[in-house]
Amino acid sequence: MNATLTDGVVRAGANARERFYDSRGYGHPVDGGALALAPVEAAHLLYRGDLDGVDGQSFRTFLTSAAVSETAFLVYKDLRDRGFYLSPARPEWLADGIALDEGADVDFVVYPRGSGPWDGEVAYRVAVVGERVSVAATDLGDAVLAVVDEESEITYLETARPEIEGSSEVSLPEGVPAELLDERVFVWDPPARLYESGFYGQRLDDQAGDVLQLSLVEAAYLVRQGALAVTGGAEAVLERGRSVEGDRFDRRLRAYTTLRERGVVPKTGFKFGADFRTYAHVESVDNLGHSELLVRVLDADHAFAPRDLALDVRLAHGVRKEMVFALVDGEDVQWVSVGRLTP
Amino acid sequence: MNATLTDGVVRAGANARERFYDSRGYGHPVDGGALALAPVEAAHLLYRGDLDGVDGQSFRTFLTSAAVSETAFLVYKDLRDRGFYLSPARPEWLADGIALDEGADVDFVVYPRGSGPWDGEVAYRVAVVGERVSVAATDLGDAVLAVVDEESEITYLETARPEIEGSSEVSLPEGVPAELLDERVFVWDPPARLYESGFYGQRLDDQAGDVLQLSLVEAAYLVRQGALAVTGGAEAVLERGRSVEGDRFDRRLRAYTTLRERGVVPKTGFKFGADFRTYAHVESVDNLGHSELLVRVLDADHAFAPRDLALDVRLAHGVRKEMVFALVDGEDVQWVSVGRLTP
Repeated sequence: MNATLTDGVVRAGANARERFYDSRGYGHPVDGGALALAPVEAAHLLYRGDLDGVDGQSFRTFLTSAAVSETAFLVYKDLRDRGFYLSPARPEWLADGIALDEGADVDFVVYPRGSGPWDGEVAYRVAVVGERVSVAATDLGDAVLAVVDEESEITYLETARPEIEGSSEVSLPEGVPAELLDERVFVWDPPARLYESGFYGQRLDDQAGDVLQLSLVEAAYLVRQGALAVTGGAEAVLERGRSVEGDRFDRRLRAYTTLRERGVVPKTGFKFGADFRTYAHVESVDNLGHSELLVRVLDADHAFAPRDLALDVRLAHGVRKEMVFALVDGEDVQWVSVGRLTP
Repeated sequence: MNATLTDGVVRAGANARERFYDSRGYGHPVDGGALALAPVEAAHLLYRGDLDGVDGQSFRTFLTSAAVSETAFLVYKDLRDRGFYLSPARPEWLADGIALDEGADVDFVVYPRGSGPWDGEVAYRVAVVGERVSVAATDLGDAVLAVVDEESEITYLETARPEIEGSSEVSLPEGVPAELLDERVFVWDPPARLYESGFYGQRLDDQAGDVLQLSLVEAAYLVRQGALAVTGGAEAVLERGRSVEGDRFDRRLRAYTTLRERGVVPKTGFKFGADFRTYAHVESVDNLGHSELLVRVLDADHAFAPRDLALDVRLAHGVRKEMVFALVDGEDVQWVSVGRLTP
């Protein structure tokens, strides 16, 4: 069977609807029993030998033409190989009830296994990106990213906007004297609950009542809360933080504060290459359990290299934590999670 | 016992040598039976209560003075807590036979457990860095990095200069026609051994004889070797590579070429957030085994944020691979490995 390409739409006549749409979910039926196909769908039918040509072009000629994106074809083929039916995300071609968020950057709507475009159910909304394309952090949260790497392997990354909530709380002391050192703050005579219940800081020796070492972020938060008193006040700690980290310090303090306000305890994520690891339900440091999230704090303007995303997500998966990005814009923090997905 | 600080050296008299050096490896004996101590050693003795004061200063006053670095103290204490004796890396204080490379940035010489400064054996040469200090890539390879994070936890990173050698080889074909697409190269009719023995590229379907997709790096190498023929020659592939990756493409191609020349097969490391994963002994793709290295390619001028190092090393450890950095300076490639260490 031959098909024709006009204005970015491939049309196949005769019994194309029955053969390709009704039984296998390709394309979109149009008036007169014909079938409209997106070029990527037509390329797949050419590849399978179900179509003989598009305007006389073979699979090879059609795939390497400007009409079809290689990366979109590779993802389309991979999802078909995995047993899914899927449609290009053209709103006018989707079944009633399948919405695409305005402005959402989605390439394919993937139906649950066993379902098709006629069922009105969606398994994944997929955005296709090449590994060299940067991805705006604020665009994440709605779709699955299908990243096609340089060797044409595909990595699927699930993105969402998680609720950040926990039950950790501790009644803070007032005005405990503390001393600002180069890049940390020492509390020489700390109330026990600051560490033992609040999980603030780290003891110099692992003994009750020992000197407590706080990070600058922890100290800035506690001074602002009135729990600690430092010469020069909160401003002195902030200044020190900014002098060693620049703007990043304010972003991290903003994220830290939001986490604490929501009952989640952030501790350094250094060993995981992140800003924080977090504990949602701290009652006592003697009974901590596993930290649930790895948090990387970013400016809301940040754009990811997909490779960096892959690195964070792989690491988080390996240590059984969820990778979460805190996107900070002034006082506002948006949370986005990214995880591995095997469709 | 009281001690005095002069010109960066703390001196303790009386029976200090016997108490601190002979039995526990602190300091360096000087004429007249006295003991010279580095400030960090004196701080540790103050902390333990073995010294009462340095010029009348308590542990607290001395530690927060300019005489002692907090981070150096924290590492010194941690290594002592782990059962090691160690000396500040002052060449004139070290036993005969303990050399420090000229220009090597080492803070402590750590002796094997059970040994001390009088034995002339070294377990680790340790450089102390704060997590916010950047580390020149070319400085790695000689010492263990002890990174003190913002919460005063210490991460030890072992660095070395590994030999990169493998036994993979395949006799390449000549002038096989290939087609340059946007970000990859297709070989429509590939000789089987290119993929099956050489592990070049990835088949579009996993079937013998199927179209082979090559990355731009793979293709540039193979065109230069005369194995592939592309319209426009190697220059066309290089140009495409540079247009999507800039200078990075040349660095990656340089590292790729060196690996192939040494019998090591590089494949994309995208899923691990690296440039390459490598296989040292490929005879057939049907019998691949585990890839041994993760390689990140960097400009030789690169300076690491310790957090990024921690991220790479933690990930590599989790997937049981060695993290290796290829430092590229023109045609020259230096290899540095970094791994986790628990002293």
